[in-house]
Amino acid sequence: MAPPFYAIISGVGTGTGSSLARRFAKSYPVVLLSRKPSSYEPVVAEITAAGGTAIGITADASDPVAVDAAFAQIEEKLPGAKLAAAVYNGHAGMSRKPFLELKLEDLETSLGTAANGFFIFAQKTIPLLLSAVSSSPHPPTLLVTGATASVRGSALFSTFAAAKFAQRALAQSLAREFGPKGVHVALAVIDGGIDTPWGKDRVVNGGVEDGKIDPDAIAESYWHLHTQHRSCFTQELDIRPYVEKF
Amino acid sequence: MAPPFYAIISGVGTGTGSSLARRFAKSYPVVLLSRKPSSYEPVVAEITAAGGTAIGITADASDPVAVDAAFAQIEEKLPGAKLAAAVYNGHAGMSRKPFLELKLEDLETSLGTAANGFFIFAQKTIPLLLSAVSSSPHPPTLLVTGATASVRGSALFSTFAAAKFAQRALAQSLAREFGPKGVHVALAVIDGGIDTPWGKDRVVNGGVEDGKIDPDAIAESYWHLHTQHRSCFTQELDIRPYVEKF
Amino acid sequence: MAPPFYAIISGVGTGTGSSLARRFAKSYPVVLLSRKPSSYEPVVAEITAAGGTAIGITADASDPVAVDAAFAQIEEKLPGAKLAAAVYNGHAGMSRKPFLELKLEDLETSLGTAANGFFIFAQKTIPLLLSAVSSSPHPPTLLVTGATASVRGSALFSTFAAAKFAQRALAQSLAREFGPKGVHVALAVIDGGIDTPWGKDRVVNGGVEDGKIDPDAIAESYWHLHTQHRSCFTQELDIRPYVEKF
Amino acid sequence: MAPPFYAIISGVGTGTGSSLARRFAKSYPVVLLSRKPSSYEPVVAEITAAGGTAIGITADASDPVAVDAAFAQIEEKLPGAKLAAAVYNGHAGMSRKPFLELKLEDLETSLGTAANGFFIFAQKTIPLLLSAVSSSPHPPTLLVTGATASVRGSALFSTFAAAKFAQRALAQSLAREFGPKGVHVALAVIDGGIDTPWGKDRVVNGGVEDGKIDPDAIAESYWHLHTQHRSCFTQELDIRPYVEKF
Repeated sequence: MAPPFYAIISGVGTGTGSSLARRFAKSYPVVLLSRKPSSYEPVVAEITAAGGTAIGITADASDPVAVDAAFAQIEEKLPGAKLAAAVYNGHAGMSRKPFLELKLEDLETSLGTAANGFFIFAQKTIPLLLSAVSSSPHPPTLLVTGATASVRGSALFSTFAAAKFAQRALAQSLAREFGPKGVHVALAVIDGGIDTPWGKDRVVNGGVEDGKIDPDAIAESYWHLHTQHRSCFTQELDIRPYVEKF
Repeated sequence: MAPPFYAIISGVGTGTGSSLARRFAKSYPVVLLSRKPSSYEPVVAEITAAGGTAIGITADASDPVAVDAAFAQIEEKLPGAKLAAAVYNGHAGMSRKPFLELKLEDLETSLGTAANGFFIFAQKTIPLLLSAVSSSPHPPTLLVTGATASVRGSALFSTFAAAKFAQRALAQSLAREFGPKGVHVALAVIDGGIDTPWGKDRVVNGGVEDGKIDPDAIAESYWHLHTQHRSCFTQELDIRPYVEKF
Repeated sequence: MAPPFYAIISGVGTGTGSSLARRFAKSYPVVLLSRKPSSYEPVVAEITAAGGTAIGITADASDPVAVDAAFAQIEEKLPGAKLAAAVYNGHAGMSRKPFLELKLEDLETSLGTAANGFFIFAQKTIPLLLSAVSSSPHPPTLLVTGATASVRGSALFSTFAAAKFAQRALAQSLAREFGPKGVHVALAVIDGGIDTPWGKDRVVNGGVEDGKIDPDAIAESYWHLHTQHRSCFTQELDIRPYVEKF
Repeated sequence: MAPPFYAIISGVGTGTGSSLARRFAKSYPVVLLSRKPSSYEPVVAEITAAGGTAIGITADASDPVAVDAAFAQIEEKLPGAKLAAAVYNGHAGMSRKPFLELKLEDLETSLGTAANGFFIFAQKTIPLLLSAVSSSPHPPTLLVTGATASVRGSALFSTFAAAKFAQRALAQSLAREFGPKGVHVALAVIDGGIDTPWGKDRVVNGGVEDGKIDPDAIAESYWHLHTQHRSCFTQELDIRPYVEKF
């Protein structure tokens, strides 16, 4: 039997990550990385119950040793499987704070997740994606979740913007380096509040219906990016609710 | 019976426009606008043979009177139908020429298609799209085909870039004005050569396989834009072959 | 005697244009183009009284015939003089209006000034600037006045943005084509209200001191652009009051 | 006697930093920060010989303790002086390397200089600049030296681009936060090779005359930024040789 293909989602909680896991699980076994088992357990259970394959692994994406261990585990659990899609959906610890109240640690924390974590994740996954180029059902894909702060340095968001800008630069450079080798690297600039269970009480866009982004809809766009033909790669797209000011 | 929905594609030849027509025809009756019947006739025949509904109308998109007449014809042929998707895929007469050899007419010709034509098309279609907001299966959508020159003024492409920049500005303004009213306006920046029948002999990206964009793949991305949930609108995306330098 | 150098400012009234005229008149004879003599007469008188040379010419910058006649007049009045700096400061008829209330004429009017007018002006001045490359005290310079709408298509500013985007594309293309030939083409994106005599009553930025841009300060930045060494050309800069939101 | 004003340049060697030091020394005592005394000593000597005041301080800009010590020294040597201009001109260790050959340390090194170093420098200087707002001869200014990689993530420059993007985000956020308080924050995107003593043998732009940027010309543009009126702040400008492709 030909080796199956799998997808990996880093940063799975109850929001976008779990929607991505459910969406990609329709076509692939999915590996879910989170810092805490409680983050991925409900999604793993849900996907399994629906007849899919989901493997949860506990790892801090900004810790290279933990990430190495995670990929060793994947090799054990899905021997011979090739990586078709990798999504870096890490939380970047968005903090809104006057610049003079920030500590250097705040910058390092934001960079650690958005830049260092994505760097580590890309270094582990790109070789795997490259080795799937000739056989994968769709061009092997590395996707990363950006934010408004990926393209705009707003007042009071200096460290978060620094980290998301850095992440965007990495995504662009990787797209230019690995696109010609058949790996699709894309950034989704999420420009709006996401409708997550933990954010139910946060009022966005005046509380209007669909004023927060449906994470299942985000997952559809990521799936579309993954399935784009190699003659037709999108490197960057923005996503926002119809009522969002921009 | 509830009134059906239809899609309209302006600028249908044998390239992107016909792919768009075939793709949208899977879900809607499609209206195809071209300057010459010979441009749309083969696609109309093909869609009809496949069991779909396609109506070809001859009109110059940069001529307001011709566009008015075209919409009057649509009202006759599809009485009561509502507009779900409108695609402006006009050719902008890309000319590569030293600036000092250009005539003012070259600028006017480029603007006429890309800016004036899109303006006229948007003024006709937006009221129709607005009236479909509450009932359309997907958020009513106005899509426009951009180019590298939409975001970059290259040497020797001054008038083409002027026209495509102008078109992009219109798309952005319309997205900001009509998004909150439920109409999805998006621009696809096509950054590469398209694999069309008439351009078979043009060597792009060293002639490598899939070095030209498959127009059917473009159509899939447009269809994805059309089906995005209103909480998750993309305003702009880029599209290019995996081997394209950018 | 070696032929002198002159500067030309298109679009001179009592705002930025007159500040530019005064600033460039410190180093060059200046030619001022306006649609009405009343626009340039006070500035011409002021510069003359201060010992400078200023020539006012009545011309509509979007009319090629009028522009031709203007340059014929310059040749008569400043025989043998070479063009060191040309500034296109045309008013683009900024109109704020819902898209569906606009007429095609509104688009054409905006494009006429910002795109066609700049095109005509560039076609007349670039050959003159090229011929000054080897002798001009500073790299011959073509400057154009942009606006917020040069880089952002806001709701209700669709036609103005279309025109200013088109103008920016032209500036970019010309910079790429003529920079290597020694002509410096630059765009200033003026992102804020300008402190003009006729706009004294318009409250901007809460009426705070210096909340409107001092046109003399704009002129200093244009002069700086003109005097940049050819190894150090700026193609685009933004200008806004310290209190402006952006 | 009113307290004098001074300028500080971080990252002074024989290239842009020394040109900046010489230019700002025409109007202010200047403080030069470098990692090694040999970097600033010749410039300090030159400025002193010309009758100016220059103080060299050895400090690693990415080390908060060293930076604290440097500012304590300044307070001793220029007691009561207020900071009028601060320039962050740190070298970001541009490395061109395939992504899969990079180590996490390469990313951290680039970020350390461009992001962390600028963060530390900004945290030390912004309070000083704020306290000079009401008395400084020009709006107190924080300038930072960017690169092509500030706005473009090229293949093989992933970590350098990540760092320069991050730095640009910080500059943008700080401009938005502190502009309204009277401090001018600006980024110069240096898009080309600089004509430095150590790079004399590097061939750029075919070796054409003025194909490398004259660092004295860069210094003139920084000085212009510093002297802009507060109603007329530039946040970002690009700088490149006339022959540079872009």
